[in-house]
Amino acid sequence: MNKVAIVGGTHGNEFSGIYLLKKWRQNPAKIQRDSFEIQTVFANPQAFEANKRYLDCDMNRQFGLNDLNNPELANYEQSRAKAINAQLGPKGEAQSDFIIDLHNTTSNMGPSLILLKSDAFNRQMAAYVKSNMPDAVIVLEDQIEMVEHTFLCSIAEQGVIVEVGPQPQSVVRQDVLDWMEAMTGHILDFVDLYNRDEVPELPSSFEAYKYHETLKLPEDENGERIGMVHKNVQDADFKPLRNGDPIYTLFDGTEVCWDGDYEAYPHFINEAAYYDNNLAMSLAKKVLVEV
Amino acid sequence: MNKVAIVGGTHGNEFSGIYLLKKWRQNPAKIQRDSFEIQTVFANPQAFEANKRYLDCDMNRQFGLNDLNNPELANYEQSRAKAINAQLGPKGEAQSDFIIDLHNTTSNMGPSLILLKSDAFNRQMAAYVKSNMPDAVIVLEDQIEMVEHTFLCSIAEQGVIVEVGPQPQSVVRQDVLDWMEAMTGHILDFVDLYNRDEVPELPSSFEAYKYHETLKLPEDENGERIGMVHKNVQDADFKPLRNGDPIYTLFDGTEVCWDGDYEAYPHFINEAAYYDNNLAMSLAKKVLVEV
Repeated sequence: MNKVAIVGGTHGNEFSGIYLLKKWRQNPAKIQRDSFEIQTVFANPQAFEANKRYLDCDMNRQFGLNDLNNPELANYEQSRAKAINAQLGPKGEAQSDFIIDLHNTTSNMGPSLILLKSDAFNRQMAAYVKSNMPDAVIVLEDQIEMVEHTFLCSIAEQGVIVEVGPQPQSVVRQDVLDWMEAMTGHILDFVDLYNRDEVPELPSSFEAYKYHETLKLPEDENGERIGMVHKNVQDADFKPLRNGDPIYTLFDGTEVCWDGDYEAYPHFINEAAYYDNNLAMSLAKKVLVEV
Repeated sequence: MNKVAIVGGTHGNEFSGIYLLKKWRQNPAKIQRDSFEIQTVFANPQAFEANKRYLDCDMNRQFGLNDLNNPELANYEQSRAKAINAQLGPKGEAQSDFIIDLHNTTSNMGPSLILLKSDAFNRQMAAYVKSNMPDAVIVLEDQIEMVEHTFLCSIAEQGVIVEVGPQPQSVVRQDVLDWMEAMTGHILDFVDLYNRDEVPELPSSFEAYKYHETLKLPEDENGERIGMVHKNVQDADFKPLRNGDPIYTLFDGTEVCWDGDYEAYPHFINEAAYYDNNLAMSLAKKVLVEV
C-alpha cells in the first residue's frame, strides 16, 4: 500500500472528520507513517459552508461506476464525486490503494469500523483495531462486491468507513472526535505494519455485525410517518433484538413489536439523516470472523 | 386565563413539538381543560418542510415590539412572526393570556421549563410542575422585562418555553417526546387549577437556575473556531462548574480552564444551533425561589 487517503466532510454536517482534517493539515506528522504516502481530502466543502449534509444529493451514494461515467449527472455532489474519483481513483484502476472515509452518526454506535470486504487484509485490520481499541465495533457490509458499492471509499481496491456516534449533526463532541482520531491512528498503524510485514500476532477470531436488512419507520397508507423508534431500542445499537420485542411506538401510544425470525443487532438506530427515506434502523447478524 | 396557546415548530428541525401538535390535533381532548380555550399553532411549517431550523432568520428572536412594528422586516420568519403576533397577540394587548412554546435542544438539559417572569403565577406553576415531575428543571430568564424579550411566547402577558433535550436536530426521540408531553400536561393542569382557584398546597420553595451569562467557543484572532467543549463538561448540563475546572479542549489538545468567580451551572452546552454565533453554553447561578 503506497498511497493512502483520508477523506473528511463527505457529509457537510458531520464535523469530527472535518475538524480532524484541519488538525492534521496543521500537523501532518500525526498521520504520516514511513511506509506510505498520505493525502487528505475535504470531500464536500460547500455542504459544510451551508451546514448541511449535502446541497443536491447524498455524496456518499455517487460512486457507482455507471454514475461516475455518466456526464449527465452533473449536480454539485455528482460533480464533486467525479472530481474526487479523478483525484483518488479512477474506480477500477485507482491511484489510491486505500481510502479511509470519516463519518459521524446521530446513533449510539460508538467507534465503528465499517468493512466493505472481508478479505485477509480487512480481517487482520479489524482484529488489530479491536485489539488496540476494545470499544471498537466491526460492521461488515460485504454483502455485495466492492465495485458494486456506491460509497466514496469504494473508489480504491481497499476502503473503509470510520463511523462514530452518537453526535448530533452540526456539533463536535470531544468523546466522538477522540474515538475517531484513535481509530484512524490504529488503522494507519496497521497499514504501516502490514506494509513492513510486521503485523503482530492477532486474535484468531473476532465478533462482528454483518448487515442483513434495513427497517422503515411506521407509515400510514399515505406514506405519512405515524410512529417512532421505541424507547427501549433508542440508543441500544448492537444490543440484541428478538422476535416480539417492542421496536416502535406509534404517536397514538400503541407499541409495535418486532416480527423477525433471527436475533438481530440494530444499528444506525434513529439516524437523523435517514429520515429522508423514512428509515428507522439497520439490522445485522452477529458473526464470528476468523482472522 | 381564558385563552391558552401551544406553539410547536418555531424551529423547523425541533421535531417533538411538531409531532405532539399533530397528535393533539387528532385528539384535542388531550390538551383541553374546562376552564380555558386552547389553540395550537404550527409556527414555522416552511422550515419543517425544508428540515431546517429556519429559512431566513431565527424565528424565536423576531418578537421584539419594534421589529413586529417594522414593515421593512419582511423575510419569511419576520413575516410569520407578524402573522403569529396578529393571531395570538398583538404584543402589549394580546388575545392570548398564556403561550407555551415547545422547543428541543441537542444539549442534555432534560425536561426544562424556562420562565421569563418570576411573579407569583410563574413561581406557583414551576412549583406545581416540579412537584408532579421530579425530573423537571426550572430555568429563569427573568433578567429583563417580558416585553423586552424577543421570544415568541413574549407576545402574551404570560408565556413559557418548554425546552427538552438531548435530541439531535431532525430526530424524534420517545424519551424526549414523552417528557415534553408530560410537562405540557402539568402546565395545562396547573392553569386549570389556578383558574378554578384550586391550586393544591405547594412546596414553600424550589431550586432554579437563573441565567447569568453566555460563553463563546474558543476562537483565534481571525474568528476561526479552535476548540470545543471539554469532555468533562459535555452532557453535564446543570452540574456545577468552578473556577479552574477544564471547560474547553483546543483542537491541538490544550485544555482551557474556566476563570470565574462564582459557582456556575452550564446549560445549553454544545447546542448545535448556537454554533452560528460560536456559542459554547449558557451559565446560570443556582437560586432558591420562594413560592
